[in-house]
Amino acid sequence: MAGSEDSETLTRQLQLADVQAARDRMAGKLKPTPINHSAFFSRAWGCDVFFKLESLHPTGSFKERGALNKMLAMPVAERGNGVITASAGNHGQALAYHAGHLAIPCTVVMPINTPLIKMQNTKSHGATVVMEGATFDDAADHARRLCAEQNLTYVHGFDDPDIIAGQGTMGLELLEQLPDMDAVVIPVGGGGLLAGTALTLKESRPSIRIIGVQSSHCQSMIAAMDGGAPQTVPPDRTIADGIAVRRVGAQCLELARRYTDQMVAVDEDEIANAILLLLERDKKVVEGAGAVGFAAVHNRHVSLEGKKVVIVLSGGNIDVNLLARIIVRGLAKDGRLVSLRVVVPDNPGQLARILQVVADLRANIMEVSHNRAFGNAAAGETTIDLTLETRGPDHIEEIQRALLAHGVHTTRQT
Amino acid sequence: MAGSEDSETLTRQLQLADVQAARDRMAGKLKPTPINHSAFFSRAWGCDVFFKLESLHPTGSFKERGALNKMLAMPVAERGNGVITASAGNHGQALAYHAGHLAIPCTVVMPINTPLIKMQNTKSHGATVVMEGATFDDAADHARRLCAEQNLTYVHGFDDPDIIAGQGTMGLELLEQLPDMDAVVIPVGGGGLLAGTALTLKESRPSIRIIGVQSSHCQSMIAAMDGGAPQTVPPDRTIADGIAVRRVGAQCLELARRYTDQMVAVDEDEIANAILLLLERDKKVVEGAGAVGFAAVHNRHVSLEGKKVVIVLSGGNIDVNLLARIIVRGLAKDGRLVSLRVVVPDNPGQLARILQVVADLRANIMEVSHNRAFGNAAAGETTIDLTLETRGPDHIEEIQRALLAHGVHTTRQT
Repeated sequence: MAGSEDSETLTRQLQLADVQAARDRMAGKLKPTPINHSAFFSRAWGCDVFFKLESLHPTGSFKERGALNKMLAMPVAERGNGVITASAGNHGQALAYHAGHLAIPCTVVMPINTPLIKMQNTKSHGATVVMEGATFDDAADHARRLCAEQNLTYVHGFDDPDIIAGQGTMGLELLEQLPDMDAVVIPVGGGGLLAGTALTLKESRPSIRIIGVQSSHCQSMIAAMDGGAPQTVPPDRTIADGIAVRRVGAQCLELARRYTDQMVAVDEDEIANAILLLLERDKKVVEGAGAVGFAAVHNRHVSLEGKKVVIVLSGGNIDVNLLARIIVRGLAKDGRLVSLRVVVPDNPGQLARILQVVADLRANIMEVSHNRAFGNAAAGETTIDLTLETRGPDHIEEIQRALLAHGVHTTRQT
Repeated sequence: MAGSEDSETLTRQLQLADVQAARDRMAGKLKPTPINHSAFFSRAWGCDVFFKLESLHPTGSFKERGALNKMLAMPVAERGNGVITASAGNHGQALAYHAGHLAIPCTVVMPINTPLIKMQNTKSHGATVVMEGATFDDAADHARRLCAEQNLTYVHGFDDPDIIAGQGTMGLELLEQLPDMDAVVIPVGGGGLLAGTALTLKESRPSIRIIGVQSSHCQSMIAAMDGGAPQTVPPDRTIADGIAVRRVGAQCLELARRYTDQMVAVDEDEIANAILLLLERDKKVVEGAGAVGFAAVHNRHVSLEGKKVVIVLSGGNIDVNLLARIIVRGLAKDGRLVSLRVVVPDNPGQLARILQVVADLRANIMEVSHNRAFGNAAAGETTIDLTLETRGPDHIEEIQRALLAHGVHTTRQT
């Protein structure tokens, strides 16, 4: 009988009631995340924009919803044995955090090249961290072996009805926080968040438009919808690494197909720019995967003029080193950082003269590098690259004109 | 009669009732800012920590409270003429934003070296921006001249009872959001936020401890309290530029002296580290001035064990270029970025051999620079500086040991 119940659970379609049950189960153990209106982007885009801050969960992503629901739904006898997963990221941290609170033993297997800080974060919640395997797949294989040997419960990151139902609780919160929303824009990796949220919203209010967004470097859900079944898509490297899932879940796909209105993809520059805009304009730290919905709306991949729109910022765990690089590249694109190449006679005083012109125009000098061997310089000349902090494109032109007036020709490096 | 009323307004002490009147006046025009519990830092510091997110006002700082109250308290006849201030920062943006909403003409004078983006932000709210003066004082002189010529109302950034009463409304919000708080930690520049908030909290619940925090590079309030009167303190350059006010307001000082329990100062490294921790651990973008309260508690300049503590994050308008530099310096301090100098024979293949050892240990190479002329290298040797992304201090030692095993001695650059 237990066996037939199991198979029924696996085959029957997930229902709105399952999401409601998940919410009841999790009551008091997971705080709703805030929803924030953005006056600035509402004005910029001509729609009424709200951000759902899933990045503000204690471990920085929506993954806590599914992980917590899964463990609460486990039979008590199985809880004692413990749970295991393979993850270098948000799912592992989420599982470790709530396992710690529920006193369930938890093992997380991570590939050996995982940054130390992620390992430390996961360990700090009381989980056992095993570093094994060169790739995620190798780590997952090892986790499956440990799972069988130690009689643990394997917690998949998305393809599990309890995980999907848990993620769906975000939809219930949205229905309370903004009952008259017109559209919701959701990042898509394995498809758990999309499946659970779309089910919840469409079964409650069918007029709400559901838009899923992927990185153009990993379009596994788009391919699966086109092909009618999960496809294995080899992902290119993307800064939205949290949604670089090469094969979506079969159960996620089924729900996503039924309830999603539109799927779009955004490119790397759009994602980087979204991270920078959220940081600078809205004071929010969002990871690449969490910023794809913003990127889709900002770059008009979806048309939402005049609508009340929720953009889900699904996670905030961005490597700060990457963040620093995104800032610097973004500034260069905006003309607030520039590299100018000058070719000048290789005499004392030349550089001082140039730097004085730059200083008079109040550009801050970040870096000066000489190159005597390469570039277009003739013998007796030297090439100098100046990296400057500037006030924008007009300021750069002003500096170039001033240098030209002093007989110094500049070329802007890209 | 009008004259005697004016002088009474100027000399009589600000009361709690003035703050309550400010709140009533501003009702519906300024949304309360959220207060966020931090599980992570509560555990780390052994107290119950809440962040008051003044950085989430539409223009990114608490300054909106005072600016809005000031304009609403102005006689209607004066409003029509318009307001003026000198500001390169938060006060100017706050005034411009609410003047725009109230349809009051607004002029903001900024020093000529103000970054373009700040000028653009202020202009985008409909204000007239005048770029004038090499320093803030020059800009302020110009603003005073324009004020007299055009019969405008000058809105001071802090030394004005309506500004102080406006800032005090933050205290009223805290009393509702966290009535049983034990202590509040407040950044201090000119003293308006401290004065208004301390008055409000102490007159409502005298047991609440009020702690003011300044940058060690500009201790104008600390000097004023010691000396019993405002002192002009020449500030050193600080990343907390928003509170680098060389002379506190006389009215602010009077209230601050009466109601503040403790003043502390934090240094530049502590502020930079606070910005990075808030970014990485709490997903919050906070400017230097806004992070000094966090820095004071994190570095145990105040002892708050077991207490319920509110740390005011007063603003989020940090230059992203500065933010990128803070991240990179913070990573270097944590051992997640390192510069290693090696001296090797100047033969083909030497660098490749070294980089292979580094690659095998999975450190990411950020930069390689050769220096044949300087450093300790003999003729026939070359000095190479490697900048590496690492997983922490242990990883760095592992790399240094592995290189030594290959006969390559390294020195860590600082």
